[in-house]
Amino acid sequence: MKQYEHLFRLFFTHLEHYRTGLNNLNPKELYEPENYILSLGGKRLRPILALIACDLFDKAPDYALNSALCVELFHNFSLIHDDILDQAPLRRNQATVHQKWNSNIAILSGDVMLVKAFKVLENYPAEEFKQLVSLFTQTAIKVCEGQQMDMNFETADNVTVDDYLKMISFKTAVLLGCSLQMGAIHAGAGKKDQQNIYEFGRHLGIAFQLLDDVLDAYAEGFDFGKMPGGDILANKKTFLLLKALELASSRQQKELHKLLALDKTSSGDKISGIKLIFDELEIKKLCLEKADEHTQKAIEHLNTLQVNQNKKQQLKNLALELLHRNI
Amino acid sequence: MKQYEHLFRLFFTHLEHYRTGLNNLNPKELYEPENYILSLGGKRLRPILALIACDLFDKAPDYALNSALCVELFHNFSLIHDDILDQAPLRRNQATVHQKWNSNIAILSGDVMLVKAFKVLENYPAEEFKQLVSLFTQTAIKVCEGQQMDMNFETADNVTVDDYLKMISFKTAVLLGCSLQMGAIHAGAGKKDQQNIYEFGRHLGIAFQLLDDVLDAYAEGFDFGKMPGGDILANKKTFLLLKALELASSRQQKELHKLLALDKTSSGDKISGIKLIFDELEIKKLCLEKADEHTQKAIEHLNTLQVNQNKKQQLKNLALELLHRNI
Repeated sequence: MKQYEHLFRLFFTHLEHYRTGLNNLNPKELYEPENYILSLGGKRLRPILALIACDLFDKAPDYALNSALCVELFHNFSLIHDDILDQAPLRRNQATVHQKWNSNIAILSGDVMLVKAFKVLENYPAEEFKQLVSLFTQTAIKVCEGQQMDMNFETADNVTVDDYLKMISFKTAVLLGCSLQMGAIHAGAGKKDQQNIYEFGRHLGIAFQLLDDVLDAYAEGFDFGKMPGGDILANKKTFLLLKALELASSRQQKELHKLLALDKTSSGDKISGIKLIFDELEIKKLCLEKADEHTQKAIEHLNTLQVNQNKKQQLKNLALELLHRNI
Repeated sequence: MKQYEHLFRLFFTHLEHYRTGLNNLNPKELYEPENYILSLGGKRLRPILALIACDLFDKAPDYALNSALCVELFHNFSLIHDDILDQAPLRRNQATVHQKWNSNIAILSGDVMLVKAFKVLENYPAEEFKQLVSLFTQTAIKVCEGQQMDMNFETADNVTVDDYLKMISFKTAVLLGCSLQMGAIHAGAGKKDQQNIYEFGRHLGIAFQLLDDVLDAYAEGFDFGKMPGGDILANKKTFLLLKALELASSRQQKELHKLLALDKTSSGDKISGIKLIFDELEIKKLCLEKADEHTQKAIEHLNTLQVNQNKKQQLKNLALELLHRNI
């Protein structure tokens, strides 16, 4: 991502300025958690995409800074609330907001961040503002729906691979599409171009999540920053597990269900047993192929755009770089 | 409120139409709670105020229906989340959302309602849309801040009457002002008129909340629909208690703190003991005077408006009707 370092710096300065402003707001209990979660870092991929798309369609990228802030605020709002839902103690190796303060403060500071994601768009002219807010509300609704689907999957026993792909499209991928389209809106791109850049981001997001599933099962802990096999231990219905359940012979089905029923005390056996079946069915390969399919679709959408070839190539490189992690 | 019955019917039809649409949305777990809370009734005061203000400034009130829906969705979103914060089992004598489903569903279905409060404004033209959204975000932020202040008051021991008035202005009153101003925006009212109708609603809201404090302590349970003395038992820092603490002699201070320390087993003694001190200090009268002061301010703001005298009188009557409950 070196080629975009100036955009990261641009956004970082803007975010720091916003965070400084939070120090003057009251009540503190509402704004300190916002400042805290924004300080924890993360890739800042979503905001950068807004700047990249604005630049791609030939408008100065700093014009998109408040849209970038909007999606970053929304993303962090969703992390605060999701961490309550998941009862997660840690986020980026630091205490989650509900853990550091309490659930009530986490609910309410999340709510106010969601409202402020709309507020930071107010600098834009009315016509543009309306296009941005319409896209953003539509996206935000999908993200909530994706999160609810994900929660439903925990107890549902008839989840298909297609259900899963829809869920990750909503929960994760559409916000990448939205970020890019916001940049395109700023630059006055046509509707068709807006849709293509949105779809580029959406497919990229799906590919990214599928690779995350593979990494969770196969990456070394040190590289990945999480305990490997976490999804397997939690019986999480990822592409890997759902595909395995779909393709398994009746012997493998039985074995899989036996392994899924194992509790935490047999974590080593559970992970190795399930991965053995994944190997028999070549699940890792199938998941990487599916990710590749979405990467290809993303690139196809990008290729339709009549924009500066160098900038397009740079964005393609970013996509491929994001997708070539240590697998 | 008989004079506004046609507006109530208008809004009711619009809301029913919206609720019917919710039946087709998925995942069900996200939209059933929204449908449920909207079905529980309530005064529908906020949405009606948007229609009334639109009519007051001579635009057909049905034009404001989506703004009315916006504030009603926001109000109900805030009820869902506040009920989690308060661990309230009941809302309008029915199970709260987190009680009927669970806290996770209550958080997430509240979030999506908040987003949809913005979405329903999309029917309006861009310039108007931007004015509405700006007013609405500013109001929504205040409501969250008011809710956080209210939570902070529970454990703070230096809350003043002024702090309390600011809190109820934010938590309750500004949304009434916002509803009215939205109607005024639709009708193309000038900035000054917009501010005056907003302030009319805000002062009305403060007066209304102060009367609610009095009712909680002094109304008969049957009339009020809640257990009388609930605030006293919960040591809630209402105008009554804060004013009493401010005016109490050192003997009364001591006595008040002893009574506040009593637990639930002595609820009868606690209520009667605290009300005895309220009586000694004429706290009920002081609270009614403060409510009257805000009612007067509300009316003054209303009086500044150059609008149809009959319509103005009708709105004045509504305000006075709302404020003359059984005290």
